[in-house]
Amino acid sequence: MSDKIRLAQVGLGRWARVLARGAQRGDSIDIYSCYSRSEDKRRAFMDEYGVERSASSYEELLADPNVEGIMITTPNDTHRSLIVQALEAGKPVYTDKPVAQTLEDAAAIKAAVDASGLPFAVGHSARRLSGNRQMKRWIDDGTLGGVSMAEANFSNERGLELTPETWRWYLDKTPGGPLIQLGVHHADNLQYLLGPVAAVSAHTRKLFTKSEVPDATMTILEFESGALGYLGCGWASPGIYQIRLQGTQHNLMYDLDFTHWDEAHEADEHSSLVSQAYGDQERRPVELPKTDMFREQLEEFGLACRGEGKVEVGVDDAIRALSVVHCAIESNAIGGKAVEVKPYLERFGIA
Amino acid sequence: MSDKIRLAQVGLGRWARVLARGAQRGDSIDIYSCYSRSEDKRRAFMDEYGVERSASSYEELLADPNVEGIMITTPNDTHRSLIVQALEAGKPVYTDKPVAQTLEDAAAIKAAVDASGLPFAVGHSARRLSGNRQMKRWIDDGTLGGVSMAEANFSNERGLELTPETWRWYLDKTPGGPLIQLGVHHADNLQYLLGPVAAVSAHTRKLFTKSEVPDATMTILEFESGALGYLGCGWASPGIYQIRLQGTQHNLMYDLDFTHWDEAHEADEHSSLVSQAYGDQERRPVELPKTDMFREQLEEFGLACRGEGKVEVGVDDAIRALSVVHCAIESNAIGGKAVEVKPYLERFGIA
Repeated sequence: MSDKIRLAQVGLGRWARVLARGAQRGDSIDIYSCYSRSEDKRRAFMDEYGVERSASSYEELLADPNVEGIMITTPNDTHRSLIVQALEAGKPVYTDKPVAQTLEDAAAIKAAVDASGLPFAVGHSARRLSGNRQMKRWIDDGTLGGVSMAEANFSNERGLELTPETWRWYLDKTPGGPLIQLGVHHADNLQYLLGPVAAVSAHTRKLFTKSEVPDATMTILEFESGALGYLGCGWASPGIYQIRLQGTQHNLMYDLDFTHWDEAHEADEHSSLVSQAYGDQERRPVELPKTDMFREQLEEFGLACRGEGKVEVGVDDAIRALSVVHCAIESNAIGGKAVEVKPYLERFGIA
Repeated sequence: MSDKIRLAQVGLGRWARVLARGAQRGDSIDIYSCYSRSEDKRRAFMDEYGVERSASSYEELLADPNVEGIMITTPNDTHRSLIVQALEAGKPVYTDKPVAQTLEDAAAIKAAVDASGLPFAVGHSARRLSGNRQMKRWIDDGTLGGVSMAEANFSNERGLELTPETWRWYLDKTPGGPLIQLGVHHADNLQYLLGPVAAVSAHTRKLFTKSEVPDATMTILEFESGALGYLGCGWASPGIYQIRLQGTQHNLMYDLDFTHWDEAHEADEHSSLVSQAYGDQERRPVELPKTDMFREQLEEFGLACRGEGKVEVGVDDAIRALSVVHCAIESNAIGGKAVEVKPYLERFGIA
């Protein structure tokens, strides 16, 4: 047996493939086993990614002593039970974002993580994009000056293409629509950059999608720092992935061509980060060192499974991101009035 | 005497100069006379722009039978009395934006305009920028598809440079800060593009400016069409002028280098409009035919003074733009809750 870290994938759809390719771009992870309820899906996944074994039940997968960690890419509403079960079986867990569908689920996951003491990672990979890392550096070293405003947009055409056969069609499976699927990324990115959000105000609309979910959402974030943030998420237009920061010394504008998102090792080549300095008419490109967000987060998780280092995004950051989504949904329900995050979390026993 | 249309300028500061240059780029307007309380300012303005006469009082200016129209570029809180007085003296009026500082003032101006039957134009010039005209065409001919989201930002560093000697320092002279000075442009642009706003929600902050006014504002617009709009306006960062529209068929992104705003005939050269089509990975530049917003609006006003044609932006459009600003200020005061525009206007007797 190789000394690679042996991870097992659960939920073998499109996203499992993106992550498998990410892991296989490195040389430290072995996709050792996999599980889906469908045997056909297991077979196809094993063939495509050279995975040598699969389990015929989740229990069987968790019982395999060679599995060092579980990677979950199932629909959001299944995260809680799969995560809790894995942790109780003594397996570290990586789960895709959002950490859970609801804050009830997230609170249960947090309790299980805290009780287990095991590594737990959430796939808020986007903060690892080179542009986000550079923006963070410019904030931390003072180059940006004082940040007053941050604007982010993450949108695509998904709402125009949904069918009743997909879980994203249904409001009870995808509360907030693009807000929980796309916006949760920026909810993490912006808090990574600017610290915790204190309050959230939002308006959502269902305009062009035939599904149950909204396809236009606009959210204002009040950061504890005093800065204001905007988060636009739509599901009824061509794709956008963008963040702009307005500082007293510089503006920074980050733009990524979302069509290259899945192949994360190429995403930086299809991105631009541009600065505009106070008193300077020229806009200047900022260098983007090459990153590979999926590979990096999985290698980090793998090392944590071996007790080497910690994961960057754990349950607390993931809950902060998810809380923005749910406070936005609640704000929209009460006419856009601001919803404070801390009291909202306390309702679910999360301090 | 030439057959040029004889206009007189009132309030001879920086903006009067921008407009004088705009008018003088054409050949239909004669800056015939001018007035400021300061004789030194009158002298300087006459010398700089080849203006042959001035009046030593506003009454004297209005009594001159050769003056065919008045151009007002004084502080916002003086608009009402100057406009009403001119209209009562039988002179058509062009005023810079915002039409007035308050909706009380705007209602009084509207009453005077309606009673006089005279041409009345407001300097919402920005909608004439080539990018805005092109976006409007793409909406009207269906190329954009259904618009779900519109985002606009107009920001600059003004708040960092204000001193107590300038009227913009004071909250009672500049309610909303960048929102009334910059945001009112986009409040017109977005309603020009997408129709009337039904409700407004906003958060404002004073973070880095030493003045009394906010320097970070974020506003969400609920359009009667169902679309959502975002308006970001800051006074604590380098300049931004941008509008993005998200349609089911295309996105359009308009970006203008604000440092070239004053010389409107060159602004299009420092602008870009980029489209992204549904299903197309490429972003494509959209041609921007050359425009000159200041010259065009003043020539249009001049012709209206002679009874030839109408002005595009009159008191009603200007009040719609101003109402967004004041509803935003009110919304911020009540924790960001949405303020409906129609009931708000009815308070001031504006139906």
